[in-house]
Amino acid sequence: MEEKTHKISVLVRNVFGTLTRISALFSSRGFNIDSLSVATSQNDETSKMTIVTHGDEATIEQIEKQLSKLVDVIKVTALNGTNFAAREILMVKVSTDASTRSEIMQICDIFDACIVSIHESSLIVKSSGKPEKNDAFLKLIRPYGVIEIARSGAIAMIRSDEPTQSF
Amino acid sequence: MEEKTHKISVLVRNVFGTLTRISALFSSRGFNIDSLSVATSQNDETSKMTIVTHGDEATIEQIEKQLSKLVDVIKVTALNGTNFAAREILMVKVSTDASTRSEIMQICDIFDACIVSIHESSLIVKSSGKPEKNDAFLKLIRPYGVIEIARSGAIAMIRSDEPTQSF
Repeated sequence: MEEKTHKISVLVRNVFGTLTRISALFSSRGFNIDSLSVATSQNDETSKMTIVTHGDEATIEQIEKQLSKLVDVIKVTALNGTNFAAREILMVKVSTDASTRSEIMQICDIFDACIVSIHESSLIVKSSGKPEKNDAFLKLIRPYGVIEIARSGAIAMIRSDEPTQSF
Repeated sequence: MEEKTHKISVLVRNVFGTLTRISALFSSRGFNIDSLSVATSQNDETSKMTIVTHGDEATIEQIEKQLSKLVDVIKVTALNGTNFAAREILMVKVSTDASTRSEIMQICDIFDACIVSIHESSLIVKSSGKPEKNDAFLKLIRPYGVIEIARSGAIAMIRSDEPTQSF
């Protein structure tokens, strides 16, 4: 069956071990999580998790059903199609010298990326936007010599007046 | 003992179950993870994880030591003091009508936040920057009626020419 990338948004209660139970559910089925980000949500009692993974449709559906059954999980939403907005933050430490610095700054300008920190022979640059934009930015930055990358992975929500998940 | 916020950067191998093992280590000690974000790093074999948690210094040190002992963990770095740069992305869906839209747009301008999506009675706004900046932005946006929040949690790296972690 065809492997596809899937984004799943999960609203959970802030109790011990929720993340462990959720990630165990993926690994027990041989699914690697490509990225995951979780932080407090609308209130202190809940957190919102965005998981990006890849695999065949049928297995993902099973995982979603099993996620829904976990006591700490309030709601699971598969983010398919185009009816959601996904954004990501990327930090990259890139090698520079006096001659390449201005070239890198030009690329940053085009991608609306900004310089966070400058050191003797490197820069830390931040880019935020669609994950594909960050991929394109990285592709142009890589030839200068990437020392380090930190990415948040996608966070996402449904494009409508309603919340992606509610109680 | 005094409770403090701690940021920990962890470079891991991309193998099944790493996230489960790491999060289990926190929950088994009664530590809640405030935020966690993980995505692929410099190459496809490794991922970088940024964990924000709070608790007493001694327990955090123990957790860091135990993290270092996990087979899939390449390097653990405690991000203390000011020698690192942390950034976060925040998406917020906020209620609007014709009269409040321009007020919200003004606040967005000041915080360099941008509108991702517009609906009949709401906006999705994206802000990226220091986590404290996002907190301040949210504080000003909340009175308009927050429908939904998604945050990546901090991603971070050391301010120097060296990578935060290397092999």
